[in-house]
Amino acid sequence: MKILITSGGTSEAIDRVRSITNHATGSLGKIMAEKCLAAQLEVTLVTTKTAIKPSYQDGLTIVEITDVASLIHTLEELVPLHDVMIHSMAVSDYSPVYMTGLEQVKMAPNLESLLDETNAEEKISSNDEYQVLFLKRTPKAISLIKQWNPDILLIGFKLLVNVSQDELFRVARDSLIKNQADYVLANDLTDIGPNRHKAYLLTQEQVYPAHTKEEIADIILEKIVKKRR
Amino acid sequence: MKILITSGGTSEAIDRVRSITNHATGSLGKIMAEKCLAAQLEVTLVTTKTAIKPSYQDGLTIVEITDVASLIHTLEELVPLHDVMIHSMAVSDYSPVYMTGLEQVKMAPNLESLLDETNAEEKISSNDEYQVLFLKRTPKAISLIKQWNPDILLIGFKLLVNVSQDELFRVARDSLIKNQADYVLANDLTDIGPNRHKAYLLTQEQVYPAHTKEEIADIILEKIVKKRR
Repeated sequence: MKILITSGGTSEAIDRVRSITNHATGSLGKIMAEKCLAAQLEVTLVTTKTAIKPSYQDGLTIVEITDVASLIHTLEELVPLHDVMIHSMAVSDYSPVYMTGLEQVKMAPNLESLLDETNAEEKISSNDEYQVLFLKRTPKAISLIKQWNPDILLIGFKLLVNVSQDELFRVARDSLIKNQADYVLANDLTDIGPNRHKAYLLTQEQVYPAHTKEEIADIILEKIVKKRR
Repeated sequence: MKILITSGGTSEAIDRVRSITNHATGSLGKIMAEKCLAAQLEVTLVTTKTAIKPSYQDGLTIVEITDVASLIHTLEELVPLHDVMIHSMAVSDYSPVYMTGLEQVKMAPNLESLLDETNAEEKISSNDEYQVLFLKRTPKAISLIKQWNPDILLIGFKLLVNVSQDELFRVARDSLIKNQADYVLANDLTDIGPNRHKAYLLTQEQVYPAHTKEEIADIILEKIVKKRR
């Protein structure tokens, strides 16, 4: 059985010296990869340069990506070759389109006209007191997974910040339907600390709670092993 | 003699899960720190969590910062205690003020009114097709150094992307005057590769060229040692 794990966070370039980065250390993906390898499962880990990674070992392939476009390109190839996907990567929701000074924005006939602009300069100048960055929503990688492989067991992730458990479960279960995921790991940034990581593995009806990254990896591994039987 | 080196790149938070990061590996700062330590100089390295660093050793103090505010706070304390400052850190020019959907921007009576807004939510929602991020120029740390310590030997850095040598020298020498720096290391991103790093240490009249990070560190060290004599 072949397991595809994503970890770390994508970055979207503003210009050649700046980018918008989603914070993610990759530590949960590392623990999951190690537990899967210990259970004699083959693992492909799609991650980023700065993410924490398992040491190189038999059964493990590591593929590095940078932005959403490179993630989607990579997953399109890998998803059909795997039986399970654990998508823990923090993926950028928006990608920079155009950045300019506030004065230029005020002079534009309408804001839409700026969405067709691109920055010709390779390092955007810093003379204006205020700048305005226009961003466009990225394609959602997770919504494409079941199109590429309808048989894959898909475990999505949903991270919110400082919301009620009701709200967390509602948003997570919405994403379960929208992305045809089999499970979604719902967690709140305020419940994550150095030695704790409260999370809930959800289906539409079930709730499997966990309190540490190790427990999260264990309950996910349990679902994977159950599928194999 | 005490040497203050900055390296790596600052990050400015958009919300609790996203930030704008200036790319910089920290490798030049690491080499400079090691050469200074080998020359029996005391080194304080102000850098970031993800930057490459020298191993811990006698004579070396490492201080980690995140954004421009924490950099300035740290430098204000450290600059008066040092004789030389090598400011190779890639510092964010702009910091996020407010992020919202394009439709809200279109409905605002004027753009200035949005500059007083702040994001109450801790993770900005991703329902809009386009979002707009307003950014404000950050205070320039380098312009404060000589105010804090008029006697410090200040080596600034200027990185441009794909410009002529004339343009690079002009912009670098402008910054020399503006920041009362003693030297500025001028370089172009297109001249930096895995094993090469073309750069020019400039005063208003002089040009000292280098072709690798080692050579850059050597010519800077030479100026430091000359000061000591």
